[in-house]
Amino acid sequence: MKSVYIKDIYRNVEKYADQTVVIEGWIRTLRASKAFGFIEVNDGTFFNNLQVVFEESLANFSEIAKLSISTSVRVEGKLVITPDAKQPFEIKAINITVEGKSSNEYPLQKKRHSFEYLREIAHLRPRSNTFSAVFRIRSLAAFAVHQFFQEKGFVYTHTPIITGSDAEGAGEMFRITTLDPKKPPVDEKGEVDFTKDFFGKETSLTVSGQLQGEAYALAFRNIYTFGPTFRAENSHTARHASEFWMIEPEMAFADLNDNMELAEEMLKYIINYVLENAPEEMDFFNKFVDKGLLDRLKGVVSSDFGRVTYTKAIELLKECKENFEYPVEWGCDLQTEHERYLTEKIFKKPVFVTDYPKDIKAFYMKLNEDGKTVAAMDLLVPGVGEIIGGSQREDKLELLEERMDAMDLDKEEYWWYLELRKYGSTRHSGYGLGFERAIMYLTGMANIRDVVSFPRTPKSADF
Amino acid sequence: MKSVYIKDIYRNVEKYADQTVVIEGWIRTLRASKAFGFIEVNDGTFFNNLQVVFEESLANFSEIAKLSISTSVRVEGKLVITPDAKQPFEIKAINITVEGKSSNEYPLQKKRHSFEYLREIAHLRPRSNTFSAVFRIRSLAAFAVHQFFQEKGFVYTHTPIITGSDAEGAGEMFRITTLDPKKPPVDEKGEVDFTKDFFGKETSLTVSGQLQGEAYALAFRNIYTFGPTFRAENSHTARHASEFWMIEPEMAFADLNDNMELAEEMLKYIINYVLENAPEEMDFFNKFVDKGLLDRLKGVVSSDFGRVTYTKAIELLKECKENFEYPVEWGCDLQTEHERYLTEKIFKKPVFVTDYPKDIKAFYMKLNEDGKTVAAMDLLVPGVGEIIGGSQREDKLELLEERMDAMDLDKEEYWWYLELRKYGSTRHSGYGLGFERAIMYLTGMANIRDVVSFPRTPKSADF
Repeated sequence: MKSVYIKDIYRNVEKYADQTVVIEGWIRTLRASKAFGFIEVNDGTFFNNLQVVFEESLANFSEIAKLSISTSVRVEGKLVITPDAKQPFEIKAINITVEGKSSNEYPLQKKRHSFEYLREIAHLRPRSNTFSAVFRIRSLAAFAVHQFFQEKGFVYTHTPIITGSDAEGAGEMFRITTLDPKKPPVDEKGEVDFTKDFFGKETSLTVSGQLQGEAYALAFRNIYTFGPTFRAENSHTARHASEFWMIEPEMAFADLNDNMELAEEMLKYIINYVLENAPEEMDFFNKFVDKGLLDRLKGVVSSDFGRVTYTKAIELLKECKENFEYPVEWGCDLQTEHERYLTEKIFKKPVFVTDYPKDIKAFYMKLNEDGKTVAAMDLLVPGVGEIIGGSQREDKLELLEERMDAMDLDKEEYWWYLELRKYGSTRHSGYGLGFERAIMYLTGMANIRDVVSFPRTPKSADF
Repeated sequence: MKSVYIKDIYRNVEKYADQTVVIEGWIRTLRASKAFGFIEVNDGTFFNNLQVVFEESLANFSEIAKLSISTSVRVEGKLVITPDAKQPFEIKAINITVEGKSSNEYPLQKKRHSFEYLREIAHLRPRSNTFSAVFRIRSLAAFAVHQFFQEKGFVYTHTPIITGSDAEGAGEMFRITTLDPKKPPVDEKGEVDFTKDFFGKETSLTVSGQLQGEAYALAFRNIYTFGPTFRAENSHTARHASEFWMIEPEMAFADLNDNMELAEEMLKYIINYVLENAPEEMDFFNKFVDKGLLDRLKGVVSSDFGRVTYTKAIELLKECKENFEYPVEWGCDLQTEHERYLTEKIFKKPVFVTDYPKDIKAFYMKLNEDGKTVAAMDLLVPGVGEIIGGSQREDKLELLEERMDAMDLDKEEYWWYLELRKYGSTRHSGYGLGFERAIMYLTGMANIRDVVSFPRTPKSADF
């Protein structure tokens, strides 16, 4: 008899009521007296466990009664509706067989563990309530992203991970090499000879797929990337990881307004999708991780996001007389405290800040007519601050080259990126959403290490 | 007036007939006489172009008549059904404005270019028929993969790209480092001191997410990965790239039969999805790239895949008296010529070959009761050979340790992988599908460099 998924039983209980079913899963809890016992089984398909009742009539009753947590079992039994009990139904066991034993050394016992401790057993933590919820939300949110863009006809583009260029023009990047680390070949000048390296030149891990994404947007009109990106920054904050996934849509024939509309629609779509498809997990986060979570997310979905220029935002922040740690002045980069004040206190909803000073933004952003700001946008959300950053791109060859010269970038290296402005350039726009930050926002989890399966941070690449 | 997508017009032409519409896109071809002209516009949303007719009544007629290919334009005009013409409808232009000029130097002129040449302009080649078709199929196939697994409740897992271990136990891997390439720190023994490197140890780019995927399958029951993987092999074949994407599902409580069923269902699902969602592109490939393509794919969808053990397959190959370049003997690895003979000549359909000699397979595959073969499976398909490789995993701690010892692997490094066999081990199975090989199979494209946006191969990491 084939086992059924516990999720199927929860979602279609009328189909299984009073039937004999088989489930397979792991023991989450076990209590037994001399005559009977209870096992909570979780099979990973669903957030909730399924209670199994077993009695001394089982041939192996005494063996089962002593099993350790996380033992994998096969249970055959009758599904009984239990309207008067805490759980809606349970299985009365006819037969329980052990597939793989566990032991009392199992590190994830029922007591509450700190998230720090659970990071040390990252191979086991998805078996806990919190992390099974986190990583199921992560999976659903990833699919929501794909479905959102595919429904709109956007072409999913796999931009390269290994790159010979630096997309942001300011990256701390990881080098990729197969040269002998101890005795690399050197050239006539005594420098390391990267022409002898695997790719015939110095290569790194990408920090963004945007530039290549632009090439594809100028062929397909609408594209998106969704892949890993990397920062070799020695940051030890709760918001920085060395390896993280990013979503970068790019649209031709689209200006900054189109860009903001897309970002707003996307964020609402993702939130709605996880609320609809993982109600048990989202309730759990709301109860045990972040008490205001559901209200906040539902507020976002039902609000029209605000829009304010950077210049106006600076005015508002100066007027508010709040005592910020970092002073506010036109030309400064907004700090998280400023961002949160804007979205939480002034607008009380998500807000796009647009048209930043060109000197604090990347070279590829479109220069506004004032000559001093660029068509950038950052989306700020309550509880987090910036979650999306994007811009309309500079589509005029001369202006782009001027900016690159001013920032001392090597135009030769970007020959193909410049050519996009030579052969049918168009207005075009895009943005980046850090996927981990989005998951933190959706779940209320406070540390990026707790929304990545096996996190990579400075001095840490375990598992 | 907002522009509409050319795809929308093709799919809902009755809605737009005799209406004034605006399209935005790039000129694919332009012919003009003194009194009128024709432009084929492609906006990237659809494989086919839309024909625009313009007449000398346009104020800028002479400017438009001289435009170069790939110029981006905005066309306002009336959509007219043309039942007697080659194209089903066209736009009679009222207004044409140029958004971005192109020039006669545009490298992708209408004449046919070799695929080799087009690789040198990888930033422009998605604007050609062939590559717009390839990369749209790639996007649709990727989504089909996600939809297939999500419909079944599989959890999408992002396994790490940067790794401190070697999943296959035999990899040629890329090193990731931030150490000074010229003067790396050395330890007391004069060796490079990787404890001073970014992650505090030597790290590489992953060759597979399987081992971490197993950890997640033993929590969620069913998971899949879909991410980039890397090989630092100096291979210059048409089937090898240094960076490619891989799909790796992993199922707990599943044996080799369940594994084969999943692989067969998945492959049929992907094929059906692209046939349904990209009929124009698939017709194009069938006509211009690979003449038997549609028949072959439809044959796969409607066939029950064959199954044969390796031992039986060797017998069949020996009996057939074919003159193979590589001789066939029990214990040898099957070469592409053998694989293709099996699937094309003997079975005439896709076939799973199972239960290979343990000595030619990876350490984690489950030892069969005969003590000399493992529960491995390779799926062979006509025209290609192997497209999927997988196995049931060794779930017994002692046997896994024995295999690791025999292969001289460092068990300490795999402590967490071994623990999965200590705390509720179960039978479990999974496989890997190389996504680029799948795209080659779906499109008939013969070189892996032509199904990757910006391919990375030895001595080549351009763009």
